[in-house]
Amino acid sequence: MAQEIAQYLDVSLAGRDLLTFSNENLFCKLHSSARGQDVYVVQTTAINVHESLMELLIMLQTLKLDSAARLTAVIPYLCYARSDKKDQPRVPITARLIADMIQSAGAERYITIDLHAGQIQGFFSIPGDSLTAFHMLSDYLLARKDEMYNPVVVTTDLGFAKKGRNFAEKLDVPLAFIEKRRIGNKDKAKAMTIIGDVKNRDVIIVDDEVDTAGSITQAVEVVRDFGARDVRLSFTHPVLSGPAVERLKKAQLTEIITTNTVPIPEHKRLPNMTILSVAPLLAEVMLRAHEGRSVGELFHE
Amino acid sequence: MAQEIAQYLDVSLAGRDLLTFSNENLFCKLHSSARGQDVYVVQTTAINVHESLMELLIMLQTLKLDSAARLTAVIPYLCYARSDKKDQPRVPITARLIADMIQSAGAERYITIDLHAGQIQGFFSIPGDSLTAFHMLSDYLLARKDEMYNPVVVTTDLGFAKKGRNFAEKLDVPLAFIEKRRIGNKDKAKAMTIIGDVKNRDVIIVDDEVDTAGSITQAVEVVRDFGARDVRLSFTHPVLSGPAVERLKKAQLTEIITTNTVPIPEHKRLPNMTILSVAPLLAEVMLRAHEGRSVGELFHE
Amino acid sequence: MAQEIAQYLDVSLAGRDLLTFSNENLFCKLHSSARGQDVYVVQTTAINVHESLMELLIMLQTLKLDSAARLTAVIPYLCYARSDKKDQPRVPITARLIADMIQSAGAERYITIDLHAGQIQGFFSIPGDSLTAFHMLSDYLLARKDEMYNPVVVTTDLGFAKKGRNFAEKLDVPLAFIEKRRIGNKDKAKAMTIIGDVKNRDVIIVDDEVDTAGSITQAVEVVRDFGARDVRLSFTHPVLSGPAVERLKKAQLTEIITTNTVPIPEHKRLPNMTILSVAPLLAEVMLRAHEGRSVGELFHE
Amino acid sequence: MAQEIAQYLDVSLAGRDLLTFSNENLFCKLHSSARGQDVYVVQTTAINVHESLMELLIMLQTLKLDSAARLTAVIPYLCYARSDKKDQPRVPITARLIADMIQSAGAERYITIDLHAGQIQGFFSIPGDSLTAFHMLSDYLLARKDEMYNPVVVTTDLGFAKKGRNFAEKLDVPLAFIEKRRIGNKDKAKAMTIIGDVKNRDVIIVDDEVDTAGSITQAVEVVRDFGARDVRLSFTHPVLSGPAVERLKKAQLTEIITTNTVPIPEHKRLPNMTILSVAPLLAEVMLRAHEGRSVGELFHE
Amino acid sequence: MAQEIAQYLDVSLAGRDLLTFSNENLFCKLHSSARGQDVYVVQTTAINVHESLMELLIMLQTLKLDSAARLTAVIPYLCYARSDKKDQPRVPITARLIADMIQSAGAERYITIDLHAGQIQGFFSIPGDSLTAFHMLSDYLLARKDEMYNPVVVTTDLGFAKKGRNFAEKLDVPLAFIEKRRIGNKDKAKAMTIIGDVKNRDVIIVDDEVDTAGSITQAVEVVRDFGARDVRLSFTHPVLSGPAVERLKKAQLTEIITTNTVPIPEHKRLPNMTILSVAPLLAEVMLRAHEGRSVGELFHE
Amino acid sequence: MAQEIAQYLDVSLAGRDLLTFSNENLFCKLHSSARGQDVYVVQTTAINVHESLMELLIMLQTLKLDSAARLTAVIPYLCYARSDKKDQPRVPITARLIADMIQSAGAERYITIDLHAGQIQGFFSIPGDSLTAFHMLSDYLLARKDEMYNPVVVTTDLGFAKKGRNFAEKLDVPLAFIEKRRIGNKDKAKAMTIIGDVKNRDVIIVDDEVDTAGSITQAVEVVRDFGARDVRLSFTHPVLSGPAVERLKKAQLTEIITTNTVPIPEHKRLPNMTILSVAPLLAEVMLRAHEGRSVGELFHE
Repeated sequence: MAQEIAQYLDVSLAGRDLLTFSNENLFCKLHSSARGQDVYVVQTTAINVHESLMELLIMLQTLKLDSAARLTAVIPYLCYARSDKKDQPRVPITARLIADMIQSAGAERYITIDLHAGQIQGFFSIPGDSLTAFHMLSDYLLARKDEMYNPVVVTTDLGFAKKGRNFAEKLDVPLAFIEKRRIGNKDKAKAMTIIGDVKNRDVIIVDDEVDTAGSITQAVEVVRDFGARDVRLSFTHPVLSGPAVERLKKAQLTEIITTNTVPIPEHKRLPNMTILSVAPLLAEVMLRAHEGRSVGELFHE
Repeated sequence: MAQEIAQYLDVSLAGRDLLTFSNENLFCKLHSSARGQDVYVVQTTAINVHESLMELLIMLQTLKLDSAARLTAVIPYLCYARSDKKDQPRVPITARLIADMIQSAGAERYITIDLHAGQIQGFFSIPGDSLTAFHMLSDYLLARKDEMYNPVVVTTDLGFAKKGRNFAEKLDVPLAFIEKRRIGNKDKAKAMTIIGDVKNRDVIIVDDEVDTAGSITQAVEVVRDFGARDVRLSFTHPVLSGPAVERLKKAQLTEIITTNTVPIPEHKRLPNMTILSVAPLLAEVMLRAHEGRSVGELFHE
Repeated sequence: MAQEIAQYLDVSLAGRDLLTFSNENLFCKLHSSARGQDVYVVQTTAINVHESLMELLIMLQTLKLDSAARLTAVIPYLCYARSDKKDQPRVPITARLIADMIQSAGAERYITIDLHAGQIQGFFSIPGDSLTAFHMLSDYLLARKDEMYNPVVVTTDLGFAKKGRNFAEKLDVPLAFIEKRRIGNKDKAKAMTIIGDVKNRDVIIVDDEVDTAGSITQAVEVVRDFGARDVRLSFTHPVLSGPAVERLKKAQLTEIITTNTVPIPEHKRLPNMTILSVAPLLAEVMLRAHEGRSVGELFHE
Repeated sequence: MAQEIAQYLDVSLAGRDLLTFSNENLFCKLHSSARGQDVYVVQTTAINVHESLMELLIMLQTLKLDSAARLTAVIPYLCYARSDKKDQPRVPITARLIADMIQSAGAERYITIDLHAGQIQGFFSIPGDSLTAFHMLSDYLLARKDEMYNPVVVTTDLGFAKKGRNFAEKLDVPLAFIEKRRIGNKDKAKAMTIIGDVKNRDVIIVDDEVDTAGSITQAVEVVRDFGARDVRLSFTHPVLSGPAVERLKKAQLTEIITTNTVPIPEHKRLPNMTILSVAPLLAEVMLRAHEGRSVGELFHE
Repeated sequence: MAQEIAQYLDVSLAGRDLLTFSNENLFCKLHSSARGQDVYVVQTTAINVHESLMELLIMLQTLKLDSAARLTAVIPYLCYARSDKKDQPRVPITARLIADMIQSAGAERYITIDLHAGQIQGFFSIPGDSLTAFHMLSDYLLARKDEMYNPVVVTTDLGFAKKGRNFAEKLDVPLAFIEKRRIGNKDKAKAMTIIGDVKNRDVIIVDDEVDTAGSITQAVEVVRDFGARDVRLSFTHPVLSGPAVERLKKAQLTEIITTNTVPIPEHKRLPNMTILSVAPLLAEVMLRAHEGRSVGELFHE
Repeated sequence: MAQEIAQYLDVSLAGRDLLTFSNENLFCKLHSSARGQDVYVVQTTAINVHESLMELLIMLQTLKLDSAARLTAVIPYLCYARSDKKDQPRVPITARLIADMIQSAGAERYITIDLHAGQIQGFFSIPGDSLTAFHMLSDYLLARKDEMYNPVVVTTDLGFAKKGRNFAEKLDVPLAFIEKRRIGNKDKAKAMTIIGDVKNRDVIIVDDEVDTAGSITQAVEVVRDFGARDVRLSFTHPVLSGPAVERLKKAQLTEIITTNTVPIPEHKRLPNMTILSVAPLLAEVMLRAHEGRSVGELFHE
């Protein structure tokens, strides 16, 4: 990712040695001094989550102690973003912990994409650019709308309802929801129903991230049970952990549209997967941030 | 509210003089020392928002400087909770500002009810009890379910979809949504449709707060257009500003169920309004917090 | 004020929308990005004190989150400056609270005029330029000294004695004080006497701010009782709340000299009022701060 | 002082070794653990100012690192209190620096007596008891009022005018001021005049501290020039540095009334000096703070 | 470890669910409320370093948000302690980062054993008990001194020279050092020599931790080359990563004495290994900390 | 020192008045504004430790309040660096206190030389350049190696063993240590022995600082007892307090090589003393820091 961004900006990446000692401890040494420079540390935190996070923090501290002029943490996918509130007693708000760590390590600004909840911006006391792949994904879908028959946008999680509406509005198609509900007293068993109409329609399921793909594949079954035709899937963050790829393969989706906020190794790439690169977006934002130009204008806002 | 809580706990309220000088500046003086005590400052911030907020902050600082042992801000309704993220460039996250102010004034804990977004808990770095009137409101509705014909829960804002589901699940009734969408290029004109089924059903509109009641009364019209029978309205925070009461009166609702997190003056009370008191809830939580007992257990969690 | 300063500096004001929602909550949106810029937020906090203060704080946070390079709060009149110490038990030090708020919202520097007590500078941990209108007001009076008969400077509050001395020294005239003292045990009844000599002299009463004008008009009576001739009044901050203007009108002063740190609406302006503008002073200081030139030199210090 | 307080409270002082190494560095070791205790560190900072201050800070940190439950710094005389504002450009506000140091070293509360300016309370963000010797000194003077002929209270510094008024009011006698003014352009030469009436009266000069006694002895001359009879001097902090004692001896004062906030060594004690002990006051306040009882009540406030 | 401490103290461990989601994110839920309690979180950070660390931080935050009265992090082995200074440019001081994280997550105190450098205590601004296994290990060796022939204490790292001296002094035996030195210009090749005398003596190699056992096994060879008889090894932290156990087996040591600050799985335990438990030490310190009694007395200090 | 650095950099020193009042309080006033400038405050803290420290802190705060753009504290010798850990209960970590003070007074970076322990870098949360005189001293010795007979490097403190090795390695000569050990139960009596070989060799004793020279002169005696020939002494910081110079004179050393991190007054300079200036080193580092160039490169690192 950093490589791709550097190419886009036609700058070279600063080198650094990153070692893992036998006792798992990480160590880094910068190849050249960052003194007085405007530094952007690009690190996603989706795979080997805790090492990645620690690597980010160590890089930030090293740069700060090396007297960098300004330090921006560029985190395409922020880990622990789902642990963003206490919705039951005696649980953590880990996303706040992560935000505190990043600041305490020395970041003065952050850039990230499609936070699980926009409110996580308020967990930071430093400024940041909280970007979205919505424009990229919805433009792609809009360009292919003609290929679809009576399309409808569907969300699998009611917490994503509002963002699902944005897709439906942009594509100018209807919206439907999948609702999960506990059956009787049993905590785990869930019934799924559809609110809205998918019958005889091409379905576009939208979400922010796909992890194990459990909910998604259930959702695909449900919309098919309710008479849907082709099913497409669009989401920003391809975490794709555990059985995710196997499940997506079995789900026989017409197309899976996602981005590279999380790197997808070759063996996880399916033939029906379209991976849009966020590198030009990040590069452009970093350029504008560096030059003190408006980032909002980039989105005509 | 403080009075009611004190009565419930069978303690007396500590006195204080609160003056407003001719230049609008507020001043407070405690009647007796708070030194070494576990103090709870009860203040809602819905009416005369900025004075109320300043009053809260001044009370907190006064108590802190007076060497109170522990200071808890009890804020049944937290102002600016809707300004909780940057969903467009160049806007504030005022809720974070408010959280910072409350902490900086000296609060070591907070207690509040039905935050607009649960994530606002993460704006604080002090612990707090973020309570909900959900149990109270849904119990009330459940007890009256037999009086309703084919009831359905409806939310007017897709951001409230997930919480709406909780009501529907508890009442064991279906769920529907009202979707607002821009028409053409005109920014302000919105079309409203219903996702899900309300025809020939009694409708329970649920929300977290009602401010001017604009969306609500539009929603009532829409569900009636779609064939709904009786319409009930349930929400936690009766801000009821501007034309709200007039609109609610005209909407001819079967029942309006709310709470007293925001005090409703006599002249704003409608005959079809049921106001449930959150004072026993707050009092019980304060008692448990004071005695170091679990608050979660109160909700069997 | 901001308009006048911008004119002086020949720069344009950055636009922003500032809305007040029906629930009193304020909201702002900047018209253009402040990224990387040296921003000065001009806001006085004398009228609608709490809204003005909140507006200042929201503007500061918005600019900080928008990645402004440096943020200076320009506050010609700082509210709550009189609540600057605990001179009795169980009261607040609200000025410290205000200082904390301004910093926590993102200000990195402040500029203000004639703080009620110079020590309030120490409430901030950010640097600031604490200016004074003393030069402006005393120059004006000095230029008119010839019109006065045997002038004497009088202060109405012993807390202003030292600053009163500065006026007397600059004008090279004697100094006198009005002393208020409780009568017997009754807390409120105060006797006023004069320490020093005003008989058959033109009197210049000096103060930092005039709020309700209660003390001032009593002072005018007292100096007249003691044989004073013409009475002039000079002060920096025209808060002029409640009955102030009515009282000043009745007091039949020869001239009232003040500044525009607090905007005086047309209907409050009396024919004998001279309003000196602090805009050139603020503009010059902002220019020097922006260019990294000495502000002290401006006053030959 | 600590000894005297301990005696009053009938507790024993905790022991500690305090060494000064050959390289001037201080070192302390507590004799017994302070874990879980409510600790009061008594240290005045008037003589060997910087060592005393460092000793206080080291004691505070040692106790904090030793897990004391609550740490209160008891500082009868706070050094650098006169450096409390920038009254000219490019100077420090050292009192704020001192407040920051004391907090950063671990103090959670402070107790002090007659701060040079009450506003210094606002330099701390921890609570404190800012006491005064006014009651003690004015009670003493009141008890001897009958011995005086037509007494008048005089202040030598206009910054002390308001506090001087309090003495005059309590004793029910008139008030006068000494005004210093530059002569011509020469910066150093000052003329002293009296505002108010001292002729044929016994004079009581009041102040907060006496350092070199320069202003005081000039003041004594001036009041005698203006026809004063006996002159008494009352002040809280006997810093008495350099030529102070010699000057006071020559000034032939009827009585010098002060306290022991700064220890006065035997050879500096004059026959006409009355030293009131603040130990009982500090002890009583510490006792009340420890037990969580009101300190304000001690002064019927 | 926690189990063993709980047994010693005869208290039960508080339960909590700790889950790892498919995306590696950790989640914890306490079984019962910690409100108002004095909580000790025991977590070593030697194996699965980053997960262990994150688990510790999440536990701390959860407990803080649950309003625990006091939170102590008990960390028998603190990871990254060797990254404690910048001994070359452009490297991190990760131990400071770790200290910041632990505090920021909510710890108010810490307890740890044999920090790589005592100065790491100064990386924390919270108090802590930095314990040592020195007494335990040296007592064990002293009790077996009679079995050894002409024993000498040897350190393999000059940074441990001072602590090695403490062992030699306690056992009343001589001291020798192994010195590593670069050969020529080649950075990696090191020659080892011995400073001091080991010929015909039983050698006790002492160190703070053994990681891959590379230096240790080289050291064993060197002392044997220089004529040593039996070789024993004593150290606090058995990190034993990678080839460590295999190397130790081959080294044919008479005895390996260590502790359980890092849990040693069954398959890593060698027949000549003696593992002393630090649980009673930690338990006793926690008990004294809880009861506010001196910890220093435990070591007669 | 500042003078010498300024000369090297061909810049002029900014003027300031520094007064000590009769009550010992310091006061400073800058001659010209530092607004917007990159300021370096050079202050060593070895003589009149506490005044020097306070002077540094006051200068930093004054410059910060005067809106300096960036503030670097240049402290050739940092006081209290030996109080860097709790190696016994109930003692302070004063070096952390000092680091906190320097930051809290406004320093954004620091530059220092040969900290007693490298870990003190981690006491700061600001970046810094922790330099060493090792290159300077060892280059000097290397250039004179031919004059020595069979040289050996000796350290007098085992805590300096590792740094002693660096000297030995650079000079390519052997290494020996002096070990101090308590005799019997008597705490103070110490026996000194030598580990390694000094017989018939020229000895170079190396250390970081020499304070009273007590250990050093004992060491000289011991190495002579063990048959050493000429003895040279090399160390960075010439604190030379109390009897130091007298002792060094009596020790009849061949040469004493040190630096001017602590100014050595004329009367303390011995004929056999070589004082290398660190001014060019500091100047070069300040220049590179100012221009945002690498400092590490200066040492080919």
